[in-house]
Parts: sequence; structure tokens; C-alpha cells
Amino acid sequence: MDNFTFHIPTQFVFGKSAEMQTGKKLKELGLKNVLIVYGTGSVVRSGLLDRVKKSLKDSDVSFLELGGIVPNPVDGPVYEGIRIGRENNIDCVLGLGGGSALDTAKAIAVGIPYNGDFWDFYADKATVEEALPVISVLTIAAAGSESSNSSVITKEEIPLKKGLKTEKIRPVLAFLNPELTFTVPAIQKAYGIADMMAHIFERYFTNTKDVLLTDELCEAVLRTIIKSGSKMLFNSQDYASHADIMWAGTLAHNDTLATGRQQDWSCHGIAHGISARFGAAHGATLAVLFPFWMLHQLHHDVERFYRFAVKVMGVDEQGNHEAAAIEGINKLRTFFDSLGLPHSLKTFGVTEEALPELVDDVKLNDEGTIGFFKPLTKEDILAIYKAALK
Amino acid sequence: MDNFTFHIPTQFVFGKSAEMQTGKKLKELGLKNVLIVYGTGSVVRSGLLDRVKKSLKDSDVSFLELGGIVPNPVDGPVYEGIRIGRENNIDCVLGLGGGSALDTAKAIAVGIPYNGDFWDFYADKATVEEALPVISVLTIAAAGSESSNSSVITKEEIPLKKGLKTEKIRPVLAFLNPELTFTVPAIQKAYGIADMMAHIFERYFTNTKDVLLTDELCEAVLRTIIKSGSKMLFNSQDYASHADIMWAGTLAHNDTLATGRQQDWSCHGIAHGISARFGAAHGATLAVLFPFWMLHQLHHDVERFYRFAVKVMGVDEQGNHEAAAIEGINKLRTFFDSLGLPHSLKTFGVTEEALPELVDDVKLNDEGTIGFFKPLTKEDILAIYKAALK
Repeated sequence: MDNFTFHIPTQFVFGKSAEMQTGKKLKELGLKNVLIVYGTGSVVRSGLLDRVKKSLKDSDVSFLELGGIVPNPVDGPVYEGIRIGRENNIDCVLGLGGGSALDTAKAIAVGIPYNGDFWDFYADKATVEEALPVISVLTIAAAGSESSNSSVITKEEIPLKKGLKTEKIRPVLAFLNPELTFTVPAIQKAYGIADMMAHIFERYFTNTKDVLLTDELCEAVLRTIIKSGSKMLFNSQDYASHADIMWAGTLAHNDTLATGRQQDWSCHGIAHGISARFGAAHGATLAVLFPFWMLHQLHHDVERFYRFAVKVMGVDEQGNHEAAAIEGINKLRTFFDSLGLPHSLKTFGVTEEALPELVDDVKLNDEGTIGFFKPLTKEDILAIYKAALK
Repeated sequence: MDNFTFHIPTQFVFGKSAEMQTGKKLKELGLKNVLIVYGTGSVVRSGLLDRVKKSLKDSDVSFLELGGIVPNPVDGPVYEGIRIGRENNIDCVLGLGGGSALDTAKAIAVGIPYNGDFWDFYADKATVEEALPVISVLTIAAAGSESSNSSVITKEEIPLKKGLKTEKIRPVLAFLNPELTFTVPAIQKAYGIADMMAHIFERYFTNTKDVLLTDELCEAVLRTIIKSGSKMLFNSQDYASHADIMWAGTLAHNDTLATGRQQDWSCHGIAHGISARFGAAHGATLAVLFPFWMLHQLHHDVERFYRFAVKVMGVDEQGNHEAAAIEGINKLRTFFDSLGLPHSLKTFGVTEEALPELVDDVKLNDEGTIGFFKPLTKEDILAIYKAALK
């Protein structure tokens, strides 16, 4: 086990009607003037925005609104939010929705107290010294952004998509009501399941020895995601499974499952380009690529894949560990299939001809590789893409 | 699953030489003048105190010391610490050792900024509004106090042992170096193992339905404690198992394994009197009582005990769930035996004649019962004590 630090300062309010506690909880923290940042349509139509506003009013917390945030959020609304925030002495920013609303809220939160252009932080030209408190009210279980330290914004005029990571934007409060996820379309729920499982895989496949406790924890959450994920997808009003998945999405991407071990992240690294060039959903690309990543990496550590097969995928213990490991990977593909997830890069319109460019898109380190478990070379990446194109 | 809030603000620094980061981390938090509270002997002899002092000096953090804290800590040193703290403008209190040093540190931290007698808080005469930041440097894995919100102090003149619970005393920093636990005597390590398993049992045996994710997490940590606990006890220099157990002790008693479920705590409730009247170690009383508590509660929910037997104790799945459940409980007793833990109240000098008084000692609720899983009446408590006396 490696040395580690562990710090999750976010206060989570989880359960039915959690959003009705926004006013009370903000007041407890001494926050009095909120900018609510949200997307287009559903949070308004569903009445969620009105419920949050009522909760704030009931606790004498005043607010302003900034709606219309789109997926892959851009810089325009960030500048608008910073202007509104400064002119009205906003003291915190509340993201209401999924990753886009939240990432925009985070960008506004670092921009308001900063004298320069907020984009300096995303362009690595300045370090965040101060940020307004960020609050999240989540409507989609997937990305773990409700308590993460990151935000991704696209500068439209270039265009350039850049990420910011700083502890200053980790939400101080996260409101998680599983009922809000009931109406998420089934395929998006499936993308979310693939995304959160992938977050755990990036931590589970490690070279760090003697990490029994976190292995057990990773396996516990993975088994739960498989069981409750299936249930949720085919029972759109089932509270228990939606609740399991919502909390699993948080645990999957905070440090609970990562203590004391090296993480990999090569599969995420080779997946991003598929989204960028072919507009594929992030979770969909991970569902396609991870089984092929596993097959490609199998011989680096057969015993780890055997453990995964037995402990997570329910493969019987047996003498031939390699065969069992492959069976486990195939069972993962079958599970993804059962959720309606794609299993070939063809689904996104990727062709053999596009592969060299996709390989060139992958951001490699100074050694010309990506990842830590078994670092992938350009040849490895091409081999995985090719296998996933069948 | 019940609604819940979840908040662990403690920043953990875990691993080899963790204590050498005290100075740097305190400085990061702007803390400049520490009162170090510690016990008698071992932290001085081992050089731990000197290492912490060196780390503080290296970061220009000044400090004062208050040593000599004894097990079952009393109020005298608390008053002394408050006086030293006020006279020297101490801005935080660092507990170095086990629960006694830490609980004393917490009492001093609430006492310094308070105008009245610190005992007001323990006697339920006042509510904590403010406390100095508390820091923990742990030397024993067991109680989870390194990040807990509680402190127990004995008022010597009465004598009266009282507990305080408030979020204000949850440590802001916890330094956990597994190597510091190498030299803990084997029997105390065993007590710690029983204690942390009991912390999970109190959460695991619940009536709350649909808590699959936390069931899986509880089972994951319990399996790890069983495996690494045995290893640690018979390999006193084995880092991996000591590290697993140290982190498991923290997870066992913070909210990670408790989200969304009713907890019980009746077995702890009936164990305290055995320590009070017979001086028995807390972990030892839990090791004796829990298997008998389980047998007594078996028919309230055979399926839950069956799940425990299969998932935690490794009993084979089978048609007769009751028989399997009993086998699981017996395997737990065998495990405790293997660690050298006692399995009868006789070990502590308890006699049949003492039982009525012990029953009377148990603090019951208004309904005359204790616990939530299947509330224990006085008759139930007597029956469990009797069974445990054989």
C-alpha cells in the first residue's frame, strides 16, 4: 500500500426531497445570496428549479438565475455569470443539473473573485487562490462531478476545451435525490453505469501490491453497480436501485476506492478522442473500449484479471486462471450488451482509416506512453482500437 | 434506504512517517501554536514525541506540552490544558496516542474558548459553539476516535464518566502511520480487531431494507479485518496487514459504512457495564458478547444472519439458512478464539450473582428497551449475559 492523503470536505445531503434542504443548509453555512446555474428545459419543466427557489426563499436566502447552459459548456455564460455575480454581491454559486451546469458554476465561482480573465485558470496561466463556495444539486448519476475538484469549459472562439483541477472548486454541499434520476433516458442511465464502472476500473487495475482493503471496496461497489444498474434500467421508478447507483457514482470517483494505490487512466485517455472526433457519448466509448483494453492488458497480470472475474463477474474459481479471466471479460461485455450499450467503435462511425489520427490525438507522456498499469505505446493503442472496431 | 447526510471533513495523512508531516500540514492550515497532549511513557520512549516536535519546529510551528494523560482520562489535566492554552494563545490542540490523549485534547479544545466550566458540555448544561481545531496522531487502531465527533472524560471528584458529541471536535487533521502500531501488545491488537468488527456489526444488523451498497461495503471491510487481522497478529512487523487494519478501523466507525441505514448499538450498550464493574477491556467484552447477541437475535431475521455467514464468514450457500447462520456465528467465535480473545464473561470475574446488577446498569430508553434491530428488554439482556457466562 502506498502512502496517501484522504480528504472529502463535501457535505452530502442524500435522499428523497434532498433539494428541499438547499435553503436550510446554505443558511447554516452563512450563505445568503446565491447564483443558480442551470441548463435548458428539464429542470424547469420538472419543477425542480421552482422547488429549489422555494427552499431558498423559505430560508431567506436570496438568489439570481443563469439558465440555458448547454452540454459541453462554453465560456460565454461563464462571463455572464461572473458579471451578474459581481454586480449583485453573490456569495456562492449553485449548479443545478448535470456536469455542464456544475462545471459552469465552478468556472463562475473562480472567476468572480479574480481580477483577470477566468480563462487564465483553464489555460494554465494562473493558479486559483480563491473561489466562492460551490453547491451541487445533481440530476444525473454518472460523472461524480457532484463532489469532484474539476471543471471542463470550452473557449468557443478558438474552439478549445480545457479542464481545471483545484480543491477550491470542490462543492461544499451536494444534494443528491435519486428520484430526480428516474426520468433520465435509459440509454443515458446505461452510459452513466459504464462511466462509473470505468472510474473504478482505472483504480482497480493497479500494480500496487498489498491493497486488499481497497480491492474489496472496489469489488463491493462494482457488484452493486451490476446488480442495481440492471434493476434501475428496467424499473424506472425503483427508488432502491436508483439510490444505490447515485451513491455508487459518487463513491466510484472520490478517493474512497483509491486510497494507497497507483491509478491507471489509460483507457479514459484513449476514449476521449472518440468523443471529440465522432461526438460519441463518454460512457459509450468506455463501454466499448474497456473490455478490449482488458484483453490487451491481460498478460501483464493474469491474476488480477482472474480476481476480477471471480469476485466481480461471478466466474467460478478454477485451475485455468487465464481462461477464467477471459470469461470474466466476456461476461462484462454481455452485461454492457444487456444495458443496450454499444460494443464496437463502428457504432460511432469510426473507420479503419480514422485510427491513425485517433492514435495521434492521444496525449502521451514524455516516454511516449499513457497509463501506469502497463503503459500503452502508440502500437498498443492502435491494437486496442483495431480490436474494438470489429 | 433511508435519507442521510454524509460529511467527513477530516483530512487524513496515512502511511509511513505520516507524523513527520504534522508541521507542514499545520502550517498549511495557518496553525502556529500547538498544545501537544500525550500519555505516559511509550510515545516518549519510542521517540514519537520527539519526531512530532521536530516536524513542528522544522515548519516554525511553536508548541507546548501536556503529558501524563492516563487511560479513562480525568478532568484534572483538562483544566491544566485549558489554563496553559489560554495563557499561551494556543490555536489548536494535538492529541498524540490513543483515545485517552485524544479525548483529553478534544475537551481542552472546547474549554479554551468557553467562558464557563468545560464540564458544562459533558454534563449537558451547555452546547459547544466554538472549539479550537483538534489534530490526532494515532498509535492504536481500534476506536476510530481519530476522526470521530466524540470525547469521554471522567469527573474525578464525583466520579462520573460522561461523553460529549459535537461536530466541532471532529479532528481537522488525522495522522495515521501503521508502523506506530507494530509494537502494540498482541492482545490489545486483538481487542482492537473485535472493537472495529463490533462497530460494523452495529451498523450491519439493521431493519432498513434496500441497503445493498452499504451491505457490500460492510462485508468488504469485515472480510478484510478477518484476513489482515490474523496476519497482523502473528506478523508484528508486517506493514500491509497493519495498514489494512488501521484504515479499516477508521472506515468501521465513520459514516462510510452507515449511509442510509438504521444502526443498533444494543450490544455496545450491554457491554459497557462489564467494563465499568469488572475492569474488562472494551474490545474483550464485545468479543464475548457479540456471538451470544447474534444467537439471541437470530430469529428476528434469519436471512440477514445467513447473508453474514455466507458473505463474511465463508459458510457455503445451502438450503438450511438457519443452520448456516449458526455455523457463521460459530465461525466468528472460532476466529475470536484464534486471536486469543476470551469467550466467556467468567474471564472477567463475572458471576451469576452479579447479573441482575449488570442488567440494571444498562441504560434503557423510555420503552424499557435498548437498540433498534430487535430492541432488547431486561429479560433479553439477562438471557444474553447468562448464555455468555457458560
